[in-house]
Amino acid sequence: MADSPNCDLTSLSPLQLFERVTEQGEKVRALKAGKAPKDEIDVAVRRLLSLKLSYKTTTGQDYQAGLPPKDLVLINNGTTKEEDEDLVDPWNVQTSNAKGVDYDKLIVRFGSSKIDTDLINRIERATGQKPHHFLRRGIFFSHRDMDQVLDAYENKKPFYLYTGRGPSSQAMHVGHLIPFMFTKWLQEVFDVPLVIQLTDDEKYLWKDMTIEKAYEYARENAKDIIACGFDINKTFIFSDLDYLGTSAGFYKNIVKVQKHVTFNQVKGIFGFTDSDCIGKISFPAIQAAPSFSSSFPQIFNGKENIQCLIPCAIDQDPYFRMTRDVAPRIGQPKPALLHSVFFPALQGAQTKMSASDPNSSIFLTDTPKQIKTKINKHAFSGGRDTIEEHRKYGGNCDVDVSFMYLTFFLEDDDRLEQLKQAYTSGELLTGELKKVLIETMQPLVAAHQERRKQVTDEIVKQFMTPRKLAFEF
Amino acid sequence: MADSPNCDLTSLSPLQLFERVTEQGEKVRALKAGKAPKDEIDVAVRRLLSLKLSYKTTTGQDYQAGLPPKDLVLINNGTTKEEDEDLVDPWNVQTSNAKGVDYDKLIVRFGSSKIDTDLINRIERATGQKPHHFLRRGIFFSHRDMDQVLDAYENKKPFYLYTGRGPSSQAMHVGHLIPFMFTKWLQEVFDVPLVIQLTDDEKYLWKDMTIEKAYEYARENAKDIIACGFDINKTFIFSDLDYLGTSAGFYKNIVKVQKHVTFNQVKGIFGFTDSDCIGKISFPAIQAAPSFSSSFPQIFNGKENIQCLIPCAIDQDPYFRMTRDVAPRIGQPKPALLHSVFFPALQGAQTKMSASDPNSSIFLTDTPKQIKTKINKHAFSGGRDTIEEHRKYGGNCDVDVSFMYLTFFLEDDDRLEQLKQAYTSGELLTGELKKVLIETMQPLVAAHQERRKQVTDEIVKQFMTPRKLAFEF
Repeated sequence: MADSPNCDLTSLSPLQLFERVTEQGEKVRALKAGKAPKDEIDVAVRRLLSLKLSYKTTTGQDYQAGLPPKDLVLINNGTTKEEDEDLVDPWNVQTSNAKGVDYDKLIVRFGSSKIDTDLINRIERATGQKPHHFLRRGIFFSHRDMDQVLDAYENKKPFYLYTGRGPSSQAMHVGHLIPFMFTKWLQEVFDVPLVIQLTDDEKYLWKDMTIEKAYEYARENAKDIIACGFDINKTFIFSDLDYLGTSAGFYKNIVKVQKHVTFNQVKGIFGFTDSDCIGKISFPAIQAAPSFSSSFPQIFNGKENIQCLIPCAIDQDPYFRMTRDVAPRIGQPKPALLHSVFFPALQGAQTKMSASDPNSSIFLTDTPKQIKTKINKHAFSGGRDTIEEHRKYGGNCDVDVSFMYLTFFLEDDDRLEQLKQAYTSGELLTGELKKVLIETMQPLVAAHQERRKQVTDEIVKQFMTPRKLAFEF
Repeated sequence: MADSPNCDLTSLSPLQLFERVTEQGEKVRALKAGKAPKDEIDVAVRRLLSLKLSYKTTTGQDYQAGLPPKDLVLINNGTTKEEDEDLVDPWNVQTSNAKGVDYDKLIVRFGSSKIDTDLINRIERATGQKPHHFLRRGIFFSHRDMDQVLDAYENKKPFYLYTGRGPSSQAMHVGHLIPFMFTKWLQEVFDVPLVIQLTDDEKYLWKDMTIEKAYEYARENAKDIIACGFDINKTFIFSDLDYLGTSAGFYKNIVKVQKHVTFNQVKGIFGFTDSDCIGKISFPAIQAAPSFSSSFPQIFNGKENIQCLIPCAIDQDPYFRMTRDVAPRIGQPKPALLHSVFFPALQGAQTKMSASDPNSSIFLTDTPKQIKTKINKHAFSGGRDTIEEHRKYGGNCDVDVSFMYLTFFLEDDDRLEQLKQAYTSGELLTGELKKVLIETMQPLVAAHQERRKQVTDEIVKQFMTPRKLAFEF
């Protein structure tokens, strides 16, 4: 991969061009500082100007030092994050705001698009189904290229869904279900195949965990995922540690992505350092590869250019910004995305929930009693300090975690609206709102547990066996 | 992988400890330069001293800045290579000496051991066979832990052989056969199984080549390798692009190695930079993994700790120094190694041969006429400028490429010695020596071509099918 001076600029991605300009700028500065011969400096400056011109032609933006092209803003890099901005990447979500992350700002920073009423209406027209309450309530709030997916769908062109989970522990909480509940709905209304990646290799690389443990968690998590009700004939669930050793196409796509992404790029996107292990550094390619249908020759009959749509929480976007940057250079379509907000911890919306703190959320293994205790004890309240004040001034739904959870799990729009008004007006007390949440979550979790019990090892094996799905491509 | 201050020093490899000391030294300097509070500097200095002590305990050497521990000397790093040293790494072999690389110096720099008469005699005793002329003539000249392999062998403990090739083109030259000819002999005299890795993924990552092309070259090269006469019942040949997608054990070992090697380490060992693609950066783990028998569950019945012996050219040693550093930390035995010298180009021993220059060597596809022409036209001569001078002063076998080639390919020791004396005394002229080489190479290449013709696609498929070999483990 020797860099010949000018010949291949047109094949470079915006981010690569950005890096070239930055490098060349540093070179010019070094030459000047080192009092290099004038000729040499002139050549370097001309090259810098030519690079800046290529950058402008490609991105439509003027090059600005430290400010990467819009579609690929660095987000895990202290030097570019402004003081009051939220920190959002696959390993960290931090905000100082009790309402949670400022998602409108995030859309601007990530360069994605808002899911607006027009798009929601269009999904309704295309599928003939009432949009999922996650769409109606802005829980899935941002997208990339969803309009293109709908264009294709309306022209009878197929697409497939891809989502995933990092199996960091056996215990999943109700927040983990959000992408799967929504993906299940998408699969039903669009009638498309679905692949679900369990990144047990990632968890092995990042955590103090054996390979065997990571794989065990993957299989256990698969049970909870299957219990969401996915159609066995249309869904393939895979562990990386497993599937990489059984698929002809998957590794080939991984190595293609790995050839087209530099350490400089993953450093910028994910904040890796020289002290990180080479497994972490190359892992983003493994999360990227399922975005390409050729990773699943058994499903797509070897067809290569099937469009992919990825529903995921917004913290996973860095992986797919990278994937979208690489896709055209390896002759693949860019995956489209639907981004969800984060699910708040019981203690408040300042952080993403942690699977390692049992009190931070309602777990899928919790008993009705545990659910009741947790909500009563830990759910952050937007109510007033005394009943009198509450009756007089009302509660604040924007920061009340019980109300937030109901937004996720109470499907009845009218009921939710009533609760909101009653709570805001002070008519409904915190304890009463919590009671509604308890009565919503207890049967929901119990029903999940009931469905999970039906998921035998044999069923897991079927879901996880590479095979043809019930679609023709 | 957060670095907690002191707790895990014992689990660190010598190279990791070396890096910790270096980092801590830099930290102390920075604190002093920044006029940090005395307390803070004292803490940092105490930590530095404690790290230096751990380093000494682990390596038996005092820490010296810029001088990594002996078993892991940086070799592709301009800052540590002395002016007059040869450059030797997997991608470059350069020397200014017409006799070729100084191998005795290389042994010292790499920290390996010389294959001496004692070891050769021991191999003879252990196998009951006359040592191969590559051993007798110092063509395989260096080793790591071969004595341990022999200890185990004498105690009836099994081992296996691992070697490989990067399929950079369809055309292989006679120099490419050296490791395979020797490996075939080892397989015969020790009666052990053999795995041969074709790193088509590496060639895709490093070269301007499609995946399909790299895989095609792998299969074509497999034919030439098979034509060396390997036993189909004891040999498994695999393409990475292929085998990674069919083996449960291979990827698991790769990811284990990837977890235990940092970017800092591969930067030091292989000279990678931030502009290199993440595929290159993580590739060393893929060449490391076949050193562990669990990468081949089908061969070893799932047994994990079978000793591996790797015959290879010395330029591949950096991969296996890294592998040996990682092995104990993932609970695997260190692979042993046997290193060969480089095969010289026809034009002289200053560089390794290039498969892309057809005149740089004798290719396995050359006709008898081509062989004759190439040797007559291109083989660098150690003879004198005129016949008179040659008769008077004699030729120089140390730089004569025809004589070097005969050292590799003429098995008859007495004949070789006669030729040497006759050439050195001036009795034998350059043209006559070249004639001997032509008469040696023509039948050798023709016989290879004949055997290669017998290698059908079906036979290649059998060699490349993961399967049980004719051994019990």
